[in-house]
Amino acid sequence: MSDRFAQISISLASIAREFQVRGWAVGTSGNFSAVVDREPLRLAMSPSGIDKGALMAEHILMIDQQVRVISGHAAKPSDESPLHIRIIQERGVGAVLHTHSIWNTILSDLHADEEGLAIEGYEMLKGLEGVRTHEHREWLPILENSQDMSALADSIGGTLRKHKSAHGFLIRRHGLYSWGENLAQAKRHVEIIEFLLEATGRAYLIRKPQVRS
Amino acid sequence: MSDRFAQISISLASIAREFQVRGWAVGTSGNFSAVVDREPLRLAMSPSGIDKGALMAEHILMIDQQVRVISGHAAKPSDESPLHIRIIQERGVGAVLHTHSIWNTILSDLHADEEGLAIEGYEMLKGLEGVRTHEHREWLPILENSQDMSALADSIGGTLRKHKSAHGFLIRRHGLYSWGENLAQAKRHVEIIEFLLEATGRAYLIRKPQVRS
Amino acid sequence: MSDRFAQISISLASIAREFQVRGWAVGTSGNFSAVVDREPLRLAMSPSGIDKGALMAEHILMIDQQVRVISGHAAKPSDESPLHIRIIQERGVGAVLHTHSIWNTILSDLHADEEGLAIEGYEMLKGLEGVRTHEHREWLPILENSQDMSALADSIGGTLRKHKSAHGFLIRRHGLYSWGENLAQAKRHVEIIEFLLEATGRAYLIRKPQVRS
Amino acid sequence: MSDRFAQISISLASIAREFQVRGWAVGTSGNFSAVVDREPLRLAMSPSGIDKGALMAEHILMIDQQVRVISGHAAKPSDESPLHIRIIQERGVGAVLHTHSIWNTILSDLHADEEGLAIEGYEMLKGLEGVRTHEHREWLPILENSQDMSALADSIGGTLRKHKSAHGFLIRRHGLYSWGENLAQAKRHVEIIEFLLEATGRAYLIRKPQVRS
Repeated sequence: MSDRFAQISISLASIAREFQVRGWAVGTSGNFSAVVDREPLRLAMSPSGIDKGALMAEHILMIDQQVRVISGHAAKPSDESPLHIRIIQERGVGAVLHTHSIWNTILSDLHADEEGLAIEGYEMLKGLEGVRTHEHREWLPILENSQDMSALADSIGGTLRKHKSAHGFLIRRHGLYSWGENLAQAKRHVEIIEFLLEATGRAYLIRKPQVRS
Repeated sequence: MSDRFAQISISLASIAREFQVRGWAVGTSGNFSAVVDREPLRLAMSPSGIDKGALMAEHILMIDQQVRVISGHAAKPSDESPLHIRIIQERGVGAVLHTHSIWNTILSDLHADEEGLAIEGYEMLKGLEGVRTHEHREWLPILENSQDMSALADSIGGTLRKHKSAHGFLIRRHGLYSWGENLAQAKRHVEIIEFLLEATGRAYLIRKPQVRS
Repeated sequence: MSDRFAQISISLASIAREFQVRGWAVGTSGNFSAVVDREPLRLAMSPSGIDKGALMAEHILMIDQQVRVISGHAAKPSDESPLHIRIIQERGVGAVLHTHSIWNTILSDLHADEEGLAIEGYEMLKGLEGVRTHEHREWLPILENSQDMSALADSIGGTLRKHKSAHGFLIRRHGLYSWGENLAQAKRHVEIIEFLLEATGRAYLIRKPQVRS
Repeated sequence: MSDRFAQISISLASIAREFQVRGWAVGTSGNFSAVVDREPLRLAMSPSGIDKGALMAEHILMIDQQVRVISGHAAKPSDESPLHIRIIQERGVGAVLHTHSIWNTILSDLHADEEGLAIEGYEMLKGLEGVRTHEHREWLPILENSQDMSALADSIGGTLRKHKSAHGFLIRRHGLYSWGENLAQAKRHVEIIEFLLEATGRAYLIRKPQVRS
């Protein structure tokens, strides 16, 4: 086991536990990966079926491009590993994080008809890599959910090619995928998109009272 | 005290503390059990009246099928122990967890007239044992509350026989019962059902603004 | 410093920190007390102006019935100490806890015209001392706020005599006071009342969609 | 490195981590400062781009009035350092804290047309320095957002001179700035204003049911 894999596994497990505490990866949901080597691809991947609130570095698996386990002895890698690999191939990124939050679930359904959701005018957008101003308009694509991982991977591939500047996407009534050059950037992107989804959803609910101001 | 009971007690107390932090077992509410032996039944059971945020393994009691204390010296087992035992008998499961959350309380009341609540179309449903697709429709039965534990146990027995595939049920304005083959699975089920109840309740509130899209 | 005062101070500080984390005592708000001796009255009291998230046992003051500091060297006891003393005198209880939560603030305003709020039909009510069934109707009185501590103490005295079975009261746009025979019971009462206020407030917002069921 | 800078850095990092846990500084957002020396100005400042949930004292930079790094080796000080310096100059305060919360984001947009938001009648207002009664009316100014830090600093300067008694201000769809004589007071002010914004926002949503009372 390389030092780099060991180091990445510690970070990956720490992010998973933090997200579980926030309620973004409860019920063993959520999956998380980071690139260890590119040629050939070696990916640190969270295992399937383990409580993310108790995930430790030693649970992290190393897999290859065909989702074969190269090292680690947890039961098996996440079922959604092919989706992570597709995102890494399409975007050339170093880490992919997938969360199931209340607000990403609700908004992924509410805006499914438009196949996406525009978020603009928020300072928090500047935290997305390459964004320089709050006037940025981020389009967050929404895909239909599927249990056919191969079809879903192809659908993701098409979405990523169509929306070159997207920092994440939603799967309907399922969750958020975001990514980054490394785990720190991917975590930042997830936290920003989750924040903006919650702010957007709560803003939909609120109306200023007539009698006040 | 068997090693198995000791081990189960550590896990049971850990789950109780985590649920208390989430607000699902405040005010000494909530109760939690796991099977130590089946023949005769020996059940690790959380005690009555103790702050679940401070529950430690040494507070867990071992009881038999008649709710007699076999080992442990906390005051007394939870008043709802007979409900746990009934669920274990009906379902043959290894662990039963009961939570009082804001959202399970609200939805148990809102849908009481229909005697249950259907949840379907969410990826999170796949975390329920035996469910293979988000297209699954989970019926979460709702029972009227009662202080007659024997009557309530019978009502639960009838509900479980009628709804063979249910992974949990609600008691009106009272809380959620869920279970699993073991504590890890039962915890997963509780987290999933709580997540889906919150997502359902919050989705009821929200409407997409006309002016946006 | 007596062992009993030392022990109570540890518990008092622990409760204060837990409540601050929950958002019930932010901005140095909230104050907490427990009886050390009754004849003459010796009260362990949280100090004024200290971050409750960082409150330690050594910050707790011992005061007498005239709010004079008997031991401890923090700046001064909470301004609301006379309110704690009045509750202890009226009810003969051993601990008084005062929280500022979002939901107690909102409901104390929403129901101020009726001078109180009825909560009934919830299983959680059974956690209030002496309550045997969820069918219990708890009347939570609401008092107008005042900066005249002596007038407010008298108003509290009148309220407690009028509502003999109340387990707490609200001060309008200010917060909740609850109490118990000891700190554990008082903490239980606060958590239950805060839970029921949040459940009540959120239930006001929600409506079942027509198209579902 | 002075003892005073070292001490301030520990407190600054601790506040940042606590605010990140509350969701007020996720995605590396938020920035935090405290005065080490006034003549010439030496300011302890949080660095840009670091996860505030993992911010440690050794990450804190010491900068001068021109935002030059005097000590510390993290990448660079926060881009919003000039805004902190302007507030310190205008108000003579010892600490400035800037948060991005869901509720400050929503209310900064909802009340942007009135260029501010009045909050009055809450006991929590008394925690703001110099406020003696809940009858106080706090005007929280709202500024338009800008990426021109120099223009934004001037806009802040004008706002602070116009609203001499304000304890904070909002930048539209961006966040809250508050301050205090020292870090403890600034933290208290942030927690109070965040509490009052959440209470205000949630109170806008709620209506008392007709059938109850």
